[in-house]
Amino acid sequence: MKPDHFELDPRLAGDSHPLCRLELCELRLMDDANYPWLILVPRVLAARELIDLDADQRRQLSDETDRAGRLLRDAFRPHKLNVAALGNVVAQLHVHVIARFEDDPAWPAPVWGRVEACAYSAEALVDRIGLLQRLLHA
Amino acid sequence: MKPDHFELDPRLAGDSHPLCRLELCELRLMDDANYPWLILVPRVLAARELIDLDADQRRQLSDETDRAGRLLRDAFRPHKLNVAALGNVVAQLHVHVIARFEDDPAWPAPVWGRVEACAYSAEALVDRIGLLQRLLHA
Repeated sequence: MKPDHFELDPRLAGDSHPLCRLELCELRLMDDANYPWLILVPRVLAARELIDLDADQRRQLSDETDRAGRLLRDAFRPHKLNVAALGNVVAQLHVHVIARFEDDPAWPAPVWGRVEACAYSAEALVDRIGLLQRLLHA
Repeated sequence: MKPDHFELDPRLAGDSHPLCRLELCELRLMDDANYPWLILVPRVLAARELIDLDADQRRQLSDETDRAGRLLRDAFRPHKLNVAALGNVVAQLHVHVIARFEDDPAWPAPVWGRVEACAYSAEALVDRIGLLQRLLHA
């Protein structure tokens, strides 16, 4: 049976930590200390592509992607932001928003498939989530 | 002196061919026959990040990205669309919209840095641009 309500993909759930429930999306922190890396997952049943969203959902996602980008800029002052909806491996629609630095382990390549994810220590995770949540609610 | 009007980055110009002038963006076909691959370049002076756009520009870009995605879907029926604003190498803001197939040369990895670009033959380029322009103006 197909689900009749939104459920976060188990792989996305396992690779990331909850930060904030936005109007459309779950905003989560990827568990990879190599890069400050957020994902936005629209709570839209069976959405796989950006073109699966209706115009209102698409505009809301654009607003929330903007908010995530400004959050990373304010928190980390990165050299560049990378924003992407790929989904070749995990089909559930999700948007990556990643702060990039000229000395990060994949620069200037995109981050996917370059170096092993480096999980946060418990203490670093608490610090990072605390910082981001304070800025989100400031 | 900094330019006082929008100019397409010379590297983007060299790597792609014009398809259509949209309200906000130049829509162009990347010269890589490995994947049906479009880029959208907003005609916004000095824009480098999505967060450099104002709300109206951002919404227009979302609409035009949606249009580019639907165009690739209608033309090629891909397995997946990849949409990304990276800009680690070419700073001028541009959005990639790429049709992906399970038998394309980079699948399931992202396309960047995987295999050499494969330029279209003159005939294949004319065919492809013709197909896309017919669908755009249908």
